[in-house]
Amino acid sequence: MLVGAGYIGLEMAENFIRRGIQVTLVEKAPQVMSTIDADLAALLAAELTKKGGQIFLEESLQGFELEGGEVRAVTTDRRTLPADLVVMGLGVRPNSQLARDAGISIGETGGIKVDEKMQTEIAGVWAAGNCTEALHLVSRRPVAFALGTVANKQGRVAGINIAGGQAAFPGVVGTAMVKVFDWEAARTGLQEREAKQAGISSASVKIEGRTRAGYYPGAGKIFVKLVFAPDSGRLLGGQIVGQEGAGKRIDVLATALHAGMTVEEMINLDLGYSPPFSPAWDPILIACRQAAGQI
Amino acid sequence: MLVGAGYIGLEMAENFIRRGIQVTLVEKAPQVMSTIDADLAALLAAELTKKGGQIFLEESLQGFELEGGEVRAVTTDRRTLPADLVVMGLGVRPNSQLARDAGISIGETGGIKVDEKMQTEIAGVWAAGNCTEALHLVSRRPVAFALGTVANKQGRVAGINIAGGQAAFPGVVGTAMVKVFDWEAARTGLQEREAKQAGISSASVKIEGRTRAGYYPGAGKIFVKLVFAPDSGRLLGGQIVGQEGAGKRIDVLATALHAGMTVEEMINLDLGYSPPFSPAWDPILIACRQAAGQI
Repeated sequence: MLVGAGYIGLEMAENFIRRGIQVTLVEKAPQVMSTIDADLAALLAAELTKKGGQIFLEESLQGFELEGGEVRAVTTDRRTLPADLVVMGLGVRPNSQLARDAGISIGETGGIKVDEKMQTEIAGVWAAGNCTEALHLVSRRPVAFALGTVANKQGRVAGINIAGGQAAFPGVVGTAMVKVFDWEAARTGLQEREAKQAGISSASVKIEGRTRAGYYPGAGKIFVKLVFAPDSGRLLGGQIVGQEGAGKRIDVLATALHAGMTVEEMINLDLGYSPPFSPAWDPILIACRQAAGQI
Repeated sequence: MLVGAGYIGLEMAENFIRRGIQVTLVEKAPQVMSTIDADLAALLAAELTKKGGQIFLEESLQGFELEGGEVRAVTTDRRTLPADLVVMGLGVRPNSQLARDAGISIGETGGIKVDEKMQTEIAGVWAAGNCTEALHLVSRRPVAFALGTVANKQGRVAGINIAGGQAAFPGVVGTAMVKVFDWEAARTGLQEREAKQAGISSASVKIEGRTRAGYYPGAGKIFVKLVFAPDSGRLLGGQIVGQEGAGKRIDVLATALHAGMTVEEMINLDLGYSPPFSPAWDPILIACRQAAGQI
């Protein structure tokens, strides 16, 4: 029994099912994995259902039924679900209480405010990792992403500066990925609703392609969605859901976001091609062509 | 029997061996796949040998022995090798004779000279694909890469311009990849010897990493070599050889080359991470850290 269908919920569900355990997911949002758009997230939910999982969306956890001190059921606002084991993946918040108590500035994300050197607003006090916030390089707003990749990079920068060296952590573009059985999902930059929240005008395209040359064994499905500025064509974000070899393609979009590239420029990216790895037009480039056609 | 151990030779060798055919490769260069450096290419040769192929390097084809009009053996400058079937993968040259006969300028690469619009030096005459040359965006020199990805992009640009639209093909960074059984090899930009030929000062680093989190099933080996400018740290090229999931990582380097990024900037690229896909520090970022440490 899993409560919350984000990254942790989906990963736990896959692995419980693989061990032969009956899995039910309860999620209060109308979709699994809200960090990607509903249409793409539905592919992951379908995969999980196909593999034997049961998913209840738009249901809120209300409590537990116990028997002899052990959980026997989970109650939601709609039903009672029997359960022997309950895992709650309800999201994360920065634990910045220590800094707050010490009078160090906390941002509106709840994370400790740090500069590019990972120094807090009090000179000589440093912070890095999940307790801090980082600049989102697309929205230019502070965000709190509790991800190991970000924490590792921030830790390196803080360490170099503390030891008297010079290093800067410019910020993040919000890349994340997850595997759900045979499907891979990844996202970077802004979703359209995130762009709207940040006051950035956006448009989007979605294409369906193939992970490898169509005739090559194992060519799987891949869906690529791009979010871009309708005037300049600047890439604002992207989402990829597909079968083997789909997910890590997000790195092209992440790198392009760091470089501030436009979808028009990206059409001619000289990406790697060989039939076992990609069609001659990588699905990302096909999406860029479609996006550029709308500008 | 295969003559030539470039992309085509290696791909043919793998597929003949998979069909139970005894394969011998003869290559006049001292390594297979000269488009990557000898140390990395040796990994591919080892894989091919392990799977039952036989490789003779630094041997030149001298002729064939025939019997009843059919080939029976291949003679090299060192030995005679029995053969029932001979495939020659000896490289490609642009077939630009038609243009040459028409008085259209041919570049020193042997390819037809075209501008960004894919127009030849004679207005109203267009060319695209393997018969043309393209600008290498790192060396800023014309090159002739006979690759389907380049031809497709050039064809699109030529077509748009011929039809009265506006499109430009900026050039290539020389990305290419190949699969050899369980190993993937990819390259982009300049090798150190290519940088030298172009009069560009370069340095390089090579790291060994893992394709996935170390504890995750199927985490394979990956070697990443970066070539960069020792003064500015600008990325000049890269090569990747490794197991499943290694090869397409070349796209991050290709995108960074298009954007003119430095290895220092690349350290903080927000690349996708999840244990099935990558360690928290993607091997590319580890290589960037090592490279940046040398500047």
